[in-house]
Amino acid sequence: MTKPGKFISLEGVEGVGKTTNLEYIADHLKSVGKTIVITREPGGTPIAEKIRNLLLDHADEALCKESELLLMFAARAQHLDTVIKPALQAGHWVLCDRFTDATYAYQGGGRDFLMKDIAWMEDFVQKGLKPDKTILLDLDVETGLKRASIRSEPDRFESEKKVFFEKVRQVYLNRAAAEPGRFSVVDASLSLNEVQEGIKIHLDDFLSKE
Amino acid sequence: MTKPGKFISLEGVEGVGKTTNLEYIADHLKSVGKTIVITREPGGTPIAEKIRNLLLDHADEALCKESELLLMFAARAQHLDTVIKPALQAGHWVLCDRFTDATYAYQGGGRDFLMKDIAWMEDFVQKGLKPDKTILLDLDVETGLKRASIRSEPDRFESEKKVFFEKVRQVYLNRAAAEPGRFSVVDASLSLNEVQEGIKIHLDDFLSKE
Repeated sequence: MTKPGKFISLEGVEGVGKTTNLEYIADHLKSVGKTIVITREPGGTPIAEKIRNLLLDHADEALCKESELLLMFAARAQHLDTVIKPALQAGHWVLCDRFTDATYAYQGGGRDFLMKDIAWMEDFVQKGLKPDKTILLDLDVETGLKRASIRSEPDRFESEKKVFFEKVRQVYLNRAAAEPGRFSVVDASLSLNEVQEGIKIHLDDFLSKE
Repeated sequence: MTKPGKFISLEGVEGVGKTTNLEYIADHLKSVGKTIVITREPGGTPIAEKIRNLLLDHADEALCKESELLLMFAARAQHLDTVIKPALQAGHWVLCDRFTDATYAYQGGGRDFLMKDIAWMEDFVQKGLKPDKTILLDLDVETGLKRASIRSEPDRFESEKKVFFEKVRQVYLNRAAAEPGRFSVVDASLSLNEVQEGIKIHLDDFLSKE
Protein backbone atom coordinates (compact mmCIF):
# COMPACT_ATOMS: atom_id res chain seq x y z
CA MET A 1 0.00 0.00 0.00
CA THR A 2 1.23 3.48 -0.88
CA LYS A 3 2.15 5.60 2.12
CA PRO A 4 -0.21 8.61 2.12
CA GLY A 5 1.32 12.01 1.42
CA LYS A 6 1.29 14.99 3.75
CA PHE A 7 -0.91 18.06 3.49
CA ILE A 8 0.83 21.42 3.90
CA SER A 9 -0.93 24.79 3.81
CA LEU A 10 0.61 28.23 3.49
CA GLU A 11 -1.22 31.12 5.13
CA GLY A 12 -0.85 34.85 5.61
CA VAL A 13 -2.39 38.22 4.79
CA GLU A 14 -2.01 40.08 1.50
CA GLY A 15 1.53 40.99 0.39
CA VAL A 16 3.21 38.54 2.70
CA GLY A 17 4.99 36.69 -0.12
CA LYS A 18 2.90 33.53 -0.40
CA THR A 19 3.45 32.97 -4.13
CA THR A 20 7.26 33.21 -3.99
CA ASN A 21 7.54 31.08 -0.89
CA LEU A 22 5.09 28.48 -2.18
CA GLU A 23 7.56 27.84 -5.00
CA TYR A 24 10.41 27.70 -2.52
CA ILE A 25 8.60 25.10 -0.39
CA ALA A 26 7.76 23.03 -3.48
CA ASP A 27 11.39 23.09 -4.64
CA HIS A 28 12.66 22.09 -1.22
CA LEU A 29 10.23 19.17 -0.94
CA LYS A 30 11.13 18.01 -4.45
CA SER A 31 14.82 18.17 -3.53
CA VAL A 32 14.20 15.59 -0.78
CA GLY A 33 12.31 13.30 -3.18
CA LYS A 34 8.66 14.18 -2.62
CA THR A 35 6.14 14.41 -5.45
CA ILE A 36 4.16 17.59 -5.08
CA VAL A 37 0.66 18.76 -5.98
CA ILE A 38 0.39 22.56 -5.77
CA THR A 39 -3.09 23.98 -5.43
CA ARG A 40 -4.94 26.94 -3.99
CA GLU A 41 -8.11 27.99 -2.19
CA PRO A 42 -10.73 28.99 -2.98
CA GLY A 43 -10.43 27.01 -6.21
CA GLY A 44 -8.28 24.11 -7.35
CA THR A 45 -10.84 22.31 -9.60
CA PRO A 46 -12.89 23.63 -12.56
CA ILE A 47 -16.08 23.81 -10.46
CA ALA A 48 -14.25 25.28 -7.47
CA GLU A 49 -12.59 27.90 -9.69
CA LYS A 50 -16.05 28.94 -10.95
CA ILE A 51 -17.10 29.31 -7.31
CA ARG A 52 -13.89 31.33 -6.69
CA ASN A 53 -14.93 33.73 -9.45
CA LEU A 54 -18.32 34.26 -7.77
CA LEU A 55 -16.48 35.02 -4.52
CA LEU A 56 -13.82 37.42 -5.84
CA ASP A 57 -15.43 39.33 -8.70
CA HIS A 58 -16.63 42.88 -8.29
CA ALA A 59 -20.17 41.79 -9.21
CA ASP A 60 -23.08 44.14 -9.86
CA GLU A 61 -24.96 42.05 -7.35
CA ALA A 62 -23.61 42.19 -3.79
CA LEU A 63 -22.89 38.74 -2.37
CA CYS A 64 -24.58 38.27 1.01
CA LYS A 65 -22.53 37.07 3.99
CA GLU A 66 -24.20 33.68 4.36
CA SER A 67 -23.73 32.95 0.67
CA GLU A 68 -20.06 33.92 0.89
CA LEU A 69 -19.38 31.40 3.64
CA LEU A 70 -21.40 28.61 2.01
CA LEU A 71 -19.66 29.15 -1.34
CA MET A 72 -16.26 29.08 0.36
CA PHE A 73 -16.98 25.67 1.85
CA ALA A 74 -18.70 24.38 -1.31
CA ALA A 75 -15.47 25.10 -3.20
CA ARG A 76 -13.48 23.45 -0.39
CA ALA A 77 -15.63 20.29 -0.40
CA GLN A 78 -15.13 19.93 -4.13
CA HIS A 79 -11.40 20.64 -3.84
CA LEU A 80 -10.95 18.03 -1.12
CA ASP A 81 -12.99 15.41 -2.96
CA THR A 82 -11.50 15.91 -6.43
CA VAL A 83 -7.90 16.98 -5.77
CA ILE A 84 -6.57 16.90 -2.21
CA LYS A 85 -7.76 13.52 -0.91
CA PRO A 86 -6.94 11.55 -4.09
CA ALA A 87 -3.47 13.15 -4.21
CA LEU A 88 -2.72 12.31 -0.57
CA GLN A 89 -3.94 8.75 -1.07
CA ALA A 90 -1.67 8.40 -4.08
CA GLY A 91 1.30 9.35 -1.88
CA HIS A 92 1.77 12.90 -3.18
CA TRP A 93 2.43 15.85 -0.93
CA VAL A 94 -0.21 18.55 -1.29
CA LEU A 95 0.90 22.14 -0.98
CA CYS A 96 -2.08 24.48 -0.71
CA ASP A 97 -2.12 28.28 -0.97
CA ARG A 98 -4.57 28.97 1.89
CA PHE A 99 -7.04 26.58 3.50
CA THR A 100 -9.61 26.69 6.32
CA ASP A 101 -7.44 28.80 8.62
CA ALA A 102 -7.95 31.56 6.05
CA THR A 103 -11.74 31.21 6.41
CA TYR A 104 -11.48 31.62 10.17
CA ALA A 105 -9.18 34.62 9.67
CA TYR A 106 -11.01 36.39 6.82
CA GLN A 107 -14.66 35.49 7.33
CA GLY A 108 -14.48 34.94 11.09
CA GLY A 109 -12.00 37.67 12.06
CA GLY A 110 -12.46 40.12 9.22
CA ARG A 111 -16.16 39.81 8.44
CA ASP A 112 -17.54 38.94 11.87
CA PHE A 113 -18.99 35.52 11.05
CA LEU A 114 -19.49 33.40 14.12
CA MET A 115 -16.56 31.04 14.66
CA LYS A 116 -19.05 28.32 15.66
CA ASP A 117 -20.74 28.52 12.22
CA ILE A 118 -17.36 28.18 10.50
CA ALA A 119 -16.50 25.28 12.79
CA TRP A 120 -19.79 23.54 11.90
CA MET A 121 -19.06 23.81 8.18
CA GLU A 122 -15.45 22.71 8.68
CA ASP A 123 -16.70 19.57 10.39
CA PHE A 124 -19.40 18.96 7.74
CA VAL A 125 -16.90 19.23 4.88
CA GLN A 126 -13.59 18.02 6.31
CA LYS A 127 -14.75 15.45 8.87
CA GLY A 128 -11.56 15.94 10.88
CA LEU A 129 -9.12 16.28 7.97
CA LYS A 130 -6.70 19.18 8.52
CA PRO A 131 -3.32 20.18 7.10
CA ASP A 132 -0.48 18.23 8.72
CA LYS A 133 1.63 21.38 8.71
CA THR A 134 0.60 25.02 8.28
CA ILE A 135 3.21 27.65 7.62
CA LEU A 136 1.99 31.11 8.60
CA LEU A 137 3.89 34.01 7.06
CA ASP A 138 3.33 36.80 9.57
CA LEU A 139 3.77 40.46 8.71
CA ASP A 140 2.51 43.75 10.10
CA VAL A 141 -0.51 44.87 8.10
CA GLU A 142 0.84 48.19 6.86
CA THR A 143 3.87 46.62 5.21
CA GLY A 144 1.73 43.82 3.74
CA LEU A 145 -0.80 46.18 2.17
CA LYS A 146 1.97 48.37 0.72
CA ARG A 147 3.56 45.33 -0.93
CA ALA A 148 0.18 44.09 -2.26
CA SER A 149 -0.82 47.45 -3.72
CA ILE A 150 2.35 47.62 -5.82
CA ARG A 151 1.56 44.24 -7.34
CA SER A 152 -1.94 44.52 -8.77
CA GLU A 153 -5.34 46.17 -8.81
CA PRO A 154 -7.14 45.48 -5.54
CA ASP A 155 -9.87 42.80 -5.72
CA ARG A 156 -12.97 42.83 -3.53
CA PHE A 157 -11.11 41.54 -0.46
CA GLU A 158 -7.96 43.64 -0.94
CA SER A 159 -9.95 46.85 -1.04
CA GLU A 160 -11.26 46.32 2.49
CA LYS A 161 -9.89 48.59 5.16
CA LYS A 162 -6.73 48.22 7.21
CA VAL A 163 -8.69 47.39 10.38
CA PHE A 164 -10.06 44.36 8.55
CA PHE A 165 -6.55 43.01 7.96
CA GLU A 166 -5.54 43.71 11.56
CA LYS A 167 -8.39 41.44 12.69
CA VAL A 168 -7.44 38.82 10.09
CA ARG A 169 -3.84 38.79 11.30
CA GLN A 170 -4.91 38.48 14.92
CA VAL A 171 -7.05 35.39 14.23
CA TYR A 172 -4.15 33.77 12.39
CA LEU A 173 -1.84 34.42 15.36
CA ASN A 174 -4.43 33.14 17.84
CA ARG A 175 -4.90 29.95 15.86
CA ALA A 176 -1.14 29.44 15.64
CA ALA A 177 -0.86 29.86 19.42
CA ALA A 178 -3.67 27.34 19.97
CA GLU A 179 -2.12 24.67 17.71
CA PRO A 180 1.65 25.09 18.03
CA GLY A 181 2.31 21.58 16.70
CA ARG A 182 0.56 22.15 13.41
CA PHE A 183 1.52 25.81 12.89
CA SER A 184 4.97 27.20 12.13
CA VAL A 185 5.04 31.00 12.25
CA VAL A 186 7.69 32.70 10.11
CA ASP A 187 8.47 36.43 10.36
CA ALA A 188 7.86 37.72 6.83
CA SER A 189 9.28 41.19 7.50
CA LEU A 190 12.81 39.77 7.17
CA SER A 191 14.73 39.54 3.88
CA LEU A 192 13.58 36.87 1.43
CA ASN A 193 16.71 34.79 2.19
CA GLU A 194 16.04 34.93 5.90
CA VAL A 195 12.34 34.07 5.43
CA GLN A 196 13.25 31.04 3.34
CA GLU A 197 15.90 29.96 5.81
CA GLY A 198 13.15 30.09 8.49
CA ILE A 199 10.78 28.05 6.33
CA LYS A 200 13.52 25.49 5.63
CA ILE A 201 14.21 24.95 9.34
CA HIS A 202 10.48 24.28 10.01
CA LEU A 203 10.13 22.01 6.97
CA ASP A 204 13.22 19.99 7.82
CA ASP A 205 11.95 19.56 11.37
CA PHE A 206 8.60 18.33 9.99
CA LEU A 207 10.34 16.00 7.52
CA SER A 208 12.54 14.55 10.25
CA LYS A 209 9.45 13.46 12.21
CA GLU A 210 7.75 11.78 9.28
CA MET B 1 -45.88 51.32 6.77
CA THR B 2 -46.51 48.90 3.93
CA LYS B 3 -48.10 45.65 4.99
CA PRO B 4 -45.58 42.87 4.16
CA GLY B 5 -46.52 40.43 1.40
CA LYS B 6 -46.94 36.70 1.79
CA PHE B 7 -44.51 34.00 0.68
CA ILE B 8 -46.01 31.06 -1.22
CA SER B 9 -44.03 28.08 -2.47
CA LEU B 10 -45.10 25.42 -4.94
CA GLU B 11 -43.62 21.95 -4.52
CA GLY B 12 -43.80 18.54 -6.15
CA VAL B 13 -41.79 15.94 -8.06
CA GLU B 14 -41.01 16.03 -11.78
CA GLY B 15 -43.94 16.13 -14.20
CA VAL B 16 -46.45 17.19 -11.58
CA GLY B 17 -47.46 20.35 -13.46
CA LYS B 18 -45.65 23.02 -11.46
CA THR B 19 -45.11 25.46 -14.35
CA THR B 20 -48.76 25.51 -15.52
CA ASN B 21 -50.12 25.77 -12.01
CA LEU B 22 -47.63 28.47 -10.99
CA GLU B 23 -49.18 30.65 -13.71
CA TYR B 24 -52.65 29.75 -12.48
CA ILE B 25 -51.79 30.75 -8.90
CA ALA B 26 -50.23 34.01 -10.09
CA ASP B 27 -53.34 34.85 -12.15
CA HIS B 28 -55.66 34.08 -9.26
CA LEU B 29 -53.68 36.24 -6.82
CA LYS B 30 -53.57 39.09 -9.33
CA SER B 31 -57.36 38.79 -9.78
CA VAL B 32 -57.80 39.56 -6.07
CA GLY B 33 -55.49 42.58 -6.28
CA LYS B 34 -52.13 41.24 -5.16
CA THR B 35 -48.85 42.29 -6.81
CA ILE B 36 -46.79 39.20 -7.53
CA VAL B 37 -43.09 38.36 -7.79
CA ILE B 38 -42.60 34.98 -9.46
CA THR B 39 -39.26 33.29 -8.87
CA ARG B 40 -37.68 29.86 -8.64
CA GLU B 41 -35.13 27.76 -6.78
CA PRO B 42 -32.33 27.11 -7.12
CA GLY B 43 -31.80 30.47 -8.82
CA GLY B 44 -33.74 33.72 -8.93
CA THR B 45 -30.78 36.17 -9.04
CA PRO B 46 -27.83 36.39 -11.50
CA ILE B 47 -25.41 34.90 -8.91
CA ALA B 48 -27.94 32.26 -7.80
CA GLU B 49 -28.61 31.29 -11.43
CA LYS B 50 -24.86 30.76 -11.92
CA ILE B 51 -24.93 28.49 -8.87
CA ARG B 52 -27.99 26.72 -10.35
CA ASN B 53 -25.96 25.97 -13.48
CA LEU B 54 -23.22 24.38 -11.38
CA LEU B 55 -25.89 22.23 -9.69
CA LEU B 56 -27.79 21.07 -12.78
CA ASP B 57 -25.24 20.76 -15.58
CA HIS B 58 -23.92 17.41 -16.69
CA ALA B 59 -20.37 18.50 -15.83
CA ASP B 60 -17.21 16.57 -16.67
CA GLU B 61 -16.37 16.91 -12.99
CA ALA B 62 -18.73 15.10 -10.60
CA LEU B 63 -20.13 17.40 -7.92
CA CYS B 64 -19.58 15.95 -4.45
CA LYS B 65 -22.52 15.64 -2.05
CA GLU B 66 -21.33 18.19 0.48
CA SER B 67 -20.73 20.74 -2.27
CA GLU B 68 -24.21 20.13 -3.69
CA LEU B 69 -25.90 20.94 -0.39
CA LEU B 70 -23.71 23.98 0.32
CA LEU B 71 -24.32 25.38 -3.17
CA MET B 72 -28.06 24.87 -2.81
CA PHE B 73 -28.12 26.96 0.36
CA ALA B 74 -25.63 29.52 -1.02
CA ALA B 75 -28.08 30.15 -3.88
CA ARG B 76 -30.96 30.31 -1.39
CA ALA B 77 -29.18 32.83 0.86
CA GLN B 78 -28.57 35.08 -2.12
CA HIS B 79 -32.13 34.64 -3.38
CA LEU B 80 -33.60 35.54 0.02
CA ASP B 81 -31.33 38.54 0.49
CA THR B 82 -31.65 39.99 -3.02
CA VAL B 83 -35.19 39.05 -4.12
CA ILE B 84 -37.53 37.43 -1.61
CA LYS B 85 -37.08 39.56 1.53
CA PRO B 86 -37.07 42.94 -0.29
CA ALA B 87 -40.19 41.91 -2.26
CA LEU B 88 -42.07 40.84 0.87
CA GLN B 89 -41.06 44.04 2.67
CA ALA B 90 -42.35 46.08 -0.30
CA GLY B 91 -45.73 44.38 0.11
CA HIS B 92 -45.49 42.03 -2.90
CA TRP B 93 -46.56 38.43 -2.76
CA VAL B 94 -43.70 36.07 -3.63
CA LEU B 95 -44.55 32.93 -5.55
CA CYS B 96 -41.60 30.53 -5.61
CA ASP B 97 -41.16 27.41 -7.75
CA ARG B 98 -39.64 25.16 -5.04
CA PHE B 99 -37.98 26.17 -1.78
CA THR B 100 -36.38 24.45 1.21
CA ASP B 101 -38.95 21.64 1.35
CA ALA B 102 -37.44 20.54 -1.98
CA THR B 103 -34.01 20.35 -0.38
CA TYR B 104 -35.35 18.09 2.38
CA ALA B 105 -37.11 15.98 -0.25
CA TYR B 106 -34.36 15.75 -2.90
CA GLN B 107 -31.14 15.97 -0.92
CA GLY B 108 -32.49 14.53 2.34
CA GLY B 109 -34.89 11.91 0.98
CA GLY B 110 -33.39 11.21 -2.43
CA ARG B 111 -29.69 11.59 -1.76
CA ASP B 112 -29.48 10.47 1.84
CA PHE B 113 -28.16 13.67 3.37
CA LEU B 114 -28.78 13.88 7.08
CA MET B 115 -31.93 15.89 7.83
CA LYS B 116 -30.10 17.50 10.77
CA ASP B 117 -27.44 18.94 8.42
CA ILE B 118 -30.15 20.40 6.17
CA ALA B 119 -31.91 21.79 9.24
CA TRP B 120 -28.67 23.44 10.40
CA MET B 121 -28.21 25.16 7.06
CA GLU B 122 -31.88 26.17 6.91
CA ASP B 123 -31.48 27.88 10.26
CA PHE B 124 -28.17 29.52 9.26
CA VAL B 125 -29.65 30.94 6.04
CA GLN B 126 -33.33 31.53 6.83
CA LYS B 127 -33.23 32.35 10.55
CA GLY B 128 -36.82 31.18 10.95
CA LEU B 129 -38.23 32.57 7.69
CA LYS B 130 -40.45 29.99 5.93
CA PRO B 131 -43.14 30.15 3.25
CA ASP B 132 -46.49 31.24 4.68
CA LYS B 133 -48.22 28.73 2.45
CA THR B 134 -46.81 25.73 0.57
CA ILE B 135 -48.87 24.03 -2.11
CA LEU B 136 -47.71 20.47 -2.68
CA LEU B 137 -48.79 18.92 -5.98
CA ASP B 138 -48.78 15.22 -5.19
CA LEU B 139 -48.63 12.56 -7.89
CA ASP B 140 -47.58 8.93 -8.04
CA VAL B 141 -44.00 8.73 -9.32
CA GLU B 142 -44.63 6.61 -12.41
CA THR B 143 -47.16 9.06 -13.87
CA GLY B 144 -44.92 12.02 -12.99
CA LEU B 145 -41.83 10.56 -14.68
CA LYS B 146 -43.84 9.66 -17.80
CA ARG B 147 -45.10 13.23 -18.10
CA ALA B 148 -41.61 14.67 -17.51
CA SER B 149 -39.93 12.43 -20.09
CA ILE B 150 -42.29 13.61 -22.83
CA ARG B 151 -41.38 17.21 -22.11
CA SER B 152 -37.58 17.38 -22.33
CA GLU B 153 -34.21 15.68 -22.20
CA PRO B 154 -33.54 14.47 -18.67
CA ASP B 155 -31.12 16.65 -16.65
CA ARG B 156 -28.85 15.31 -13.93
CA PHE B 157 -31.64 15.00 -11.37
CA GLU B 158 -34.31 13.71 -13.79
CA SER B 159 -32.10 10.85 -14.87
CA GLU B 160 -31.98 9.43 -11.35
CA LYS B 161 -33.89 6.23 -10.74
CA LYS B 162 -37.54 5.79 -9.87
CA VAL B 163 -36.72 4.72 -6.32
CA PHE B 164 -35.12 8.11 -5.84
CA PHE B 165 -38.39 9.87 -6.68
CA GLU B 166 -40.37 7.55 -4.43
CA LYS B 167 -38.20 8.66 -1.52
CA VAL B 168 -38.55 12.31 -2.56
CA ARG B 169 -42.35 12.03 -2.66
CA GLN B 170 -42.43 10.37 0.74
CA VAL B 171 -40.46 13.18 2.39
CA TYR B 172 -42.80 15.75 0.86
CA LEU B 173 -45.82 13.89 2.24
CA ASN B 174 -44.22 13.50 5.66
CA ARG B 175 -43.46 17.19 5.85
CA ALA B 176 -47.00 18.06 4.79
CA ALA B 177 -48.37 15.81 7.53
CA ALA B 178 -46.08 17.44 10.11
CA GLU B 179 -47.11 21.02 9.16
CA PRO B 180 -50.75 20.80 8.07
CA GLY B 181 -51.29 24.54 8.59
CA ARG B 182 -48.56 25.60 6.17
CA PHE B 183 -49.01 22.80 3.60
CA SER B 184 -51.93 22.28 1.24
CA VAL B 185 -51.71 18.96 -0.61
CA VAL B 186 -53.43 18.82 -4.01
CA ASP B 187 -53.94 15.56 -5.93
CA ALA B 188 -52.19 16.20 -9.25
CA SER B 189 -53.44 13.00 -10.89
CA LEU B 190 -56.82 14.68 -11.51
CA SER B 191 -57.66 16.70 -14.63
CA LEU B 192 -56.08 20.16 -14.89
CA ASN B 193 -59.44 21.81 -14.17
CA GLU B 194 -59.92 19.75 -11.05
CA VAL B 195 -56.32 20.41 -9.87
CA GLN B 196 -56.82 24.14 -10.31
CA GLU B 197 -60.18 24.03 -8.55
CA GLY B 198 -58.37 22.34 -5.64
CA ILE B 199 -55.64 24.98 -5.63
CA LYS B 200 -58.24 27.77 -5.73
CA ILE B 201 -60.04 26.41 -2.66
CA HIS B 202 -56.79 26.32 -0.67
CA LEU B 203 -55.71 29.78 -1.85
CA ASP B 204 -59.10 31.35 -1.07
CA ASP B 205 -58.99 29.81 2.39
CA PHE B 206 -55.50 31.27 2.91
CA LEU B 207 -56.59 34.67 1.58
CA SER B 208 -59.65 34.71 3.87
CA LYS B 209 -57.39 34.39 6.94
CA GLU B 210 -55.02 37.17 5.92
